[in-house]
Amino acid sequence: MTTRFFGDIKPAKYEGPDSTNPLAYRFYNPDEMVMGKRMEDQLRFSIAYWHSFAWPGGDPFGGQTFERPWFGDTMKHAKHKADVAFELFTLLGAPYYCFHDADVRPEGKNFAESAERLDEITDYFAQKQQATGVKLLWGTANLFSNRRFMSGAATNPDPDVFAYSAATVKKCIDVTKKLGGENYVLWGGREGYETLLNTDLKREREQAGRFLCMVIDYVKKIGFKGTILIEPKPQEPTKHQYDYDVATVYGFLKDFGLEKEVKVNIEQGHAILAGHSFEHELALADALGIFGSIDMNRNDYQSGWDTDQFPNNVPEMALAYYYVLQNGGFTTGGTNFDAKLRRQSLEPEDLLIAHIGGMDCCARGLKAAAKMLEDKALSKPLAERYSGWDSGEGKAMLSGKRTLEEVAARVVKDGIEPQPRSGRQEYLENVVNRYV
Amino acid sequence: MTTRFFGDIKPAKYEGPDSTNPLAYRFYNPDEMVMGKRMEDQLRFSIAYWHSFAWPGGDPFGGQTFERPWFGDTMKHAKHKADVAFELFTLLGAPYYCFHDADVRPEGKNFAESAERLDEITDYFAQKQQATGVKLLWGTANLFSNRRFMSGAATNPDPDVFAYSAATVKKCIDVTKKLGGENYVLWGGREGYETLLNTDLKREREQAGRFLCMVIDYVKKIGFKGTILIEPKPQEPTKHQYDYDVATVYGFLKDFGLEKEVKVNIEQGHAILAGHSFEHELALADALGIFGSIDMNRNDYQSGWDTDQFPNNVPEMALAYYYVLQNGGFTTGGTNFDAKLRRQSLEPEDLLIAHIGGMDCCARGLKAAAKMLEDKALSKPLAERYSGWDSGEGKAMLSGKRTLEEVAARVVKDGIEPQPRSGRQEYLENVVNRYV
Amino acid sequence: MTTRFFGDIKPAKYEGPDSTNPLAYRFYNPDEMVMGKRMEDQLRFSIAYWHSFAWPGGDPFGGQTFERPWFGDTMKHAKHKADVAFELFTLLGAPYYCFHDADVRPEGKNFAESAERLDEITDYFAQKQQATGVKLLWGTANLFSNRRFMSGAATNPDPDVFAYSAATVKKCIDVTKKLGGENYVLWGGREGYETLLNTDLKREREQAGRFLCMVIDYVKKIGFKGTILIEPKPQEPTKHQYDYDVATVYGFLKDFGLEKEVKVNIEQGHAILAGHSFEHELALADALGIFGSIDMNRNDYQSGWDTDQFPNNVPEMALAYYYVLQNGGFTTGGTNFDAKLRRQSLEPEDLLIAHIGGMDCCARGLKAAAKMLEDKALSKPLAERYSGWDSGEGKAMLSGKRTLEEVAARVVKDGIEPQPRSGRQEYLENVVNRYV
Amino acid sequence: MTTRFFGDIKPAKYEGPDSTNPLAYRFYNPDEMVMGKRMEDQLRFSIAYWHSFAWPGGDPFGGQTFERPWFGDTMKHAKHKADVAFELFTLLGAPYYCFHDADVRPEGKNFAESAERLDEITDYFAQKQQATGVKLLWGTANLFSNRRFMSGAATNPDPDVFAYSAATVKKCIDVTKKLGGENYVLWGGREGYETLLNTDLKREREQAGRFLCMVIDYVKKIGFKGTILIEPKPQEPTKHQYDYDVATVYGFLKDFGLEKEVKVNIEQGHAILAGHSFEHELALADALGIFGSIDMNRNDYQSGWDTDQFPNNVPEMALAYYYVLQNGGFTTGGTNFDAKLRRQSLEPEDLLIAHIGGMDCCARGLKAAAKMLEDKALSKPLAERYSGWDSGEGKAMLSGKRTLEEVAARVVKDGIEPQPRSGRQEYLENVVNRYV
Repeated sequence: MTTRFFGDIKPAKYEGPDSTNPLAYRFYNPDEMVMGKRMEDQLRFSIAYWHSFAWPGGDPFGGQTFERPWFGDTMKHAKHKADVAFELFTLLGAPYYCFHDADVRPEGKNFAESAERLDEITDYFAQKQQATGVKLLWGTANLFSNRRFMSGAATNPDPDVFAYSAATVKKCIDVTKKLGGENYVLWGGREGYETLLNTDLKREREQAGRFLCMVIDYVKKIGFKGTILIEPKPQEPTKHQYDYDVATVYGFLKDFGLEKEVKVNIEQGHAILAGHSFEHELALADALGIFGSIDMNRNDYQSGWDTDQFPNNVPEMALAYYYVLQNGGFTTGGTNFDAKLRRQSLEPEDLLIAHIGGMDCCARGLKAAAKMLEDKALSKPLAERYSGWDSGEGKAMLSGKRTLEEVAARVVKDGIEPQPRSGRQEYLENVVNRYV
Repeated sequence: MTTRFFGDIKPAKYEGPDSTNPLAYRFYNPDEMVMGKRMEDQLRFSIAYWHSFAWPGGDPFGGQTFERPWFGDTMKHAKHKADVAFELFTLLGAPYYCFHDADVRPEGKNFAESAERLDEITDYFAQKQQATGVKLLWGTANLFSNRRFMSGAATNPDPDVFAYSAATVKKCIDVTKKLGGENYVLWGGREGYETLLNTDLKREREQAGRFLCMVIDYVKKIGFKGTILIEPKPQEPTKHQYDYDVATVYGFLKDFGLEKEVKVNIEQGHAILAGHSFEHELALADALGIFGSIDMNRNDYQSGWDTDQFPNNVPEMALAYYYVLQNGGFTTGGTNFDAKLRRQSLEPEDLLIAHIGGMDCCARGLKAAAKMLEDKALSKPLAERYSGWDSGEGKAMLSGKRTLEEVAARVVKDGIEPQPRSGRQEYLENVVNRYV
Repeated sequence: MTTRFFGDIKPAKYEGPDSTNPLAYRFYNPDEMVMGKRMEDQLRFSIAYWHSFAWPGGDPFGGQTFERPWFGDTMKHAKHKADVAFELFTLLGAPYYCFHDADVRPEGKNFAESAERLDEITDYFAQKQQATGVKLLWGTANLFSNRRFMSGAATNPDPDVFAYSAATVKKCIDVTKKLGGENYVLWGGREGYETLLNTDLKREREQAGRFLCMVIDYVKKIGFKGTILIEPKPQEPTKHQYDYDVATVYGFLKDFGLEKEVKVNIEQGHAILAGHSFEHELALADALGIFGSIDMNRNDYQSGWDTDQFPNNVPEMALAYYYVLQNGGFTTGGTNFDAKLRRQSLEPEDLLIAHIGGMDCCARGLKAAAKMLEDKALSKPLAERYSGWDSGEGKAMLSGKRTLEEVAARVVKDGIEPQPRSGRQEYLENVVNRYV
Repeated sequence: MTTRFFGDIKPAKYEGPDSTNPLAYRFYNPDEMVMGKRMEDQLRFSIAYWHSFAWPGGDPFGGQTFERPWFGDTMKHAKHKADVAFELFTLLGAPYYCFHDADVRPEGKNFAESAERLDEITDYFAQKQQATGVKLLWGTANLFSNRRFMSGAATNPDPDVFAYSAATVKKCIDVTKKLGGENYVLWGGREGYETLLNTDLKREREQAGRFLCMVIDYVKKIGFKGTILIEPKPQEPTKHQYDYDVATVYGFLKDFGLEKEVKVNIEQGHAILAGHSFEHELALADALGIFGSIDMNRNDYQSGWDTDQFPNNVPEMALAYYYVLQNGGFTTGGTNFDAKLRRQSLEPEDLLIAHIGGMDCCARGLKAAAKMLEDKALSKPLAERYSGWDSGEGKAMLSGKRTLEEVAARVVKDGIEPQPRSGRQEYLENVVNRYV
């Protein structure tokens, strides 16, 4: 028995590249083996509850466009929403989902009631997980929508908001653990400022550090095995957000001694807003040892805000998964579609089509990335380019066996005059194009 | 006896706000006391050799516009250039200057000859410093213009370029020490990448860390008392530069245990390119304890590259110096005009006028900033806003005396439902406008 | 008898530059003469109904922060809102206001009811205008918030939406005329596209042209004396908005033969989003003969969306009013504060303080601009720079008396080899700084 | 007999999608038929002389990296350069090339000598065209590199520079005609401003209009059959360039009555800098009837300047050619590679590989675009979406048969309450992904 929201639509199947069925996969073939794992286990797709079920279609200049039967403020609405959500997960064959507390239950009249409602709906989720086999990739707390968080959550000038936020995160971790969530995410949408004029940057940074330490202590104590993830974003809604990008988060973690405890959840759109390519953020997180998970979407390159569109550019996907796979692939992380329908895409079918197109794009990118890695198409030229560092003076210098004076003396003595060598960028770009 | 480049122009004097003399100061009054120091000692102005004397006026679509008598490849030209440079410093009454090796001597046929020439010209500088009282704010090495550095200096795939760079930096530190330089700057113009496809990000980061460690060991050994400064920039000329912004540099320093040894030289234009306001970078460096010096200029907000214009917006200057003064003001650092004439500003007089206008802007901003600090115009409202953290549960939470569970329990028990309070941004913006 | 929303606050008075009263003007002195007119008549300040009274404080990641007693869906709420609005206008001494239909009345169950409600509330406005002396700068229709407009208004693929929009604009023009509005504005917030894939650009452009022609025919027929203004914006909410910038609007007007009938309402924030400075758009509209009015606000230079902040940078204001005054000042147009409080600025007082600060900034900028014009501080050097065109061959070429061959022959014959002259940018920037 | 610059490299051949030969085409198959034309005749590839032969590899922070045997200031160097250029054209099988006067001959001591040298080298080109079958797509004048143009060419404050520019353009049109060039391009790299403070925008716009009118009169008189093309760019090197984008150029042409005489040469990188997608500019030029030719390259989406990289993203190419083909394909225009090697790509082979990769990308995009058009994959849904305008009231309104009042009356009478319909963006994006 279903909600009938999606009518008679049947679960999406893999039909191969030549299919023209808009509701079938052309590339996502869950059981196909890619680099020694089932494709499903490589990609670990997850559906974001908020965009697909809680977002009404508004933007800064317009209100609701979607008319969903589950829009409303009662627990009955919340359960109807859950019913449809798990139907979508099932129709798509998506193994995971993600949610914020505020997505899944109406706000209560006080903290305690909100918490009770969260318990109730997540018990309902537990049954549905059991029934469908769908799992929770990560849970998280919405510490940004309610007006109480307007000046920050952990970084609020008011310690009561810090406290309220702490209680909320504790609760969300508890239900994430209950549901077997494999990660817990912290996105600091209001942890930043609108103007430095009313902001004590240093103090707020310490509040944030303290908050994170408390969280880490707590998850250790309760034995939560999932990964704690910070999600960088440079701005929006705030003018400046403290978790600006991967490099910034790393410095913050180092400062509080948490770089082994916390990893990052990297979003394509956030990378773009910070002035980086998606693959830059992935490669950097890998280099720093803090790569965790990805929020998959696409930002419009001509718009200066977070557009959260479904991905559709395969060459870009291929590079993203190249760095994921090079890093050994996901462990607890996965590919969460933090992507929303365009607000004009009103039909239930649009929700399926958007995810199917996005999943196909990822699958196609993954396969291309895997092939590049297997062929050492990029890694072989790379190793050759840096081979001078693998032995002799290169190795000695890099390992700390040479002082500045010794190196300088050798330059003079040996008359070293380095000759530049081609970086071969266009050749490598063409190589990538053989795979996509 | 002068070069006559500036004709009969006399040293610029302070004439007060009503002066319409384009070659006089309206606000910069070196001996005026500002927060307990002479204005000159607060601002510590420095002139950048490269823009004013070495740059021919080219841009990506056009070549040389300036016709300077010292343009040429001989040591004679180099000395002529030095003569004019010290005349400019003297006419402006600027107490400091800065230079790269490549600005001041023609490149030699090999490393040894380049080094000899650097010795020769810096001996000449020493005499001029002696004669004029002008001092060296900082020296630095140009590791980006010559084609040997096209793929990086310390982060080059070729260890010979690393070695050559090390030898160059050693030499530049030596002459900086000889000249009594108060800082030494590292700007990694080529320490980044054009494409990840040919780049081993992780390895290059380790090369950069090793290089910096060698530099720090060396300055300690030779007893160089100046501050070592890294200058963040996000990109340009490269697609991505490793020292992206203050936060990124901090993470890098922490990683190599150098956060006590190295500070940052923050440039307005680089802050803008990284998506930050200038004051953000200053406030953050202060919060992280790594503030060192500033490169003063202005980027065009509508242009996506580093325009390095002379500053001219007093309200922006006031906020910048507010954070400098709040941090206790400069120690070894100063205000270096890393600003270049527009390429259409051909006349010798333009060089003076541009600096005079910039210095006046800074002086005006400094005075406004000092007054705001003295009046506690911003700091008092700020202290009030965060006062909840100074005692009671706020203080207990921040100092680590509360666990997540304890805080959560208190929220439920006390029924905490925080009420938002006005952030008063417009009020504070109006307050600032009283001072500028 | 007042609403008491603003408590005991008294009307804002001019107290002079030294006042520290946050509720007094330091520069805005309505009766002071500036270039032959009262300052009030030069600036023609207007308050935007939507930001100050209809906006709940939401952003893409958070909901309502303001709690206003007039929020609600009844005509009673609408009248309460009007009462407070006219109190604000009066407390500020603002001579004008502006509104959209959707700001002032709750949406009806159908077009007819919405129209009736608009009649009712604007009758109420008429009484209030009479009582207070406040006038209507312009009226406009909100053709972007309701879901019916999600795919455009005049440019909708569905002709019924075009028709609905036409009926709405007719109604809004009617009430604007009734209220003595001095202009009528068209901002095409949804006249653009999200993706070219579902958009017939050419057809939509013709729809827009047809719509505008119908509007012009109508205002002529009914004898509406106000100016019809298009407000350019490049994007947001759409990916691309057809009225991108002043130059684009001009081409569109020329195409439909309307360049004498329609002018532009230029907004600082929209100029910035289009990659222009505010003064560029003003100078261009002046050059093209289509300058009408301004929407005064400020965009954050580091944020990629329309932040609509209150202006606070006097040097920028001075340049803006320089071009307004150079163009002869406003005729039917004025300075409309299309600026909204930051969503954390919750207090009634904040609403006053924000406008007072903004008005003071404008007044200060206006005075500086007037002085620059009176002194010919910029215009004299400009005239000299171009003086070669005022006579001789320059004049002959420009007036069309020379062919390409004739000019080319003269270059060869006379051996013309032009020598560049300094553009003196820094000098002119310093000159401006004497006035701000 | 060849220059041996490319050693033993043989002409690039089509080897099919499975080829791994970096010097072979995988998709560009000149004789393959695409929408009724040979692929070569659809794409009309052209090589840009400037990037490939005149550019030394410099950027704002570094000098020459390329060491080409033809770098030098003599006519002998110029001929050597031409020899290698025609070898490249031949090795690639490119049917066209483009050049500026300054790319092909050393500047003379005066205008007359520069002109003589241009005659001499273009005579040499004529022989080479004859020998190789390579044709000239377009010629153009470099009115931006020499210091005489630093303040503009046609828009210079000095009428002598206008005259010099006129003489230069006349000369360049003459040689373009001599060589059978199929178009002549005007790119106004200095036609703009650095600061409004020293700029008379209105006057400069009239200078530009007069200049263009003189050019059009001249080409008519001499019977030049090629198309005159303006190339829009928003900025760089200037802060603002008058030919900002397609819409701006259209307004300018309308103003001077030249919209039937002049078309646009659209560059991907310039579109991006102006805040548009490439396909937007193509679709708009088509809608306005001024589409002419394309400069094919790619801008880095994270860099704020014109990076002029070789294209490598096939989905983007497919959309670009979709609008070209929809418009009927090229007439006199073509696909000019206005793309430069990365400055680290030092090897002769890199020059070939870069073009081969770019041409393959275009070919692959063209084939996808052609298939989409043949299948009506996008055009059928589009026609359906707008079908309401093809008859009844829609048609009547659009054709001008209805007044605003009539339409408004019908809305009320018929109780029109439009219901939004899905825009199906994700569906259409997925459809495109079936083709790329």
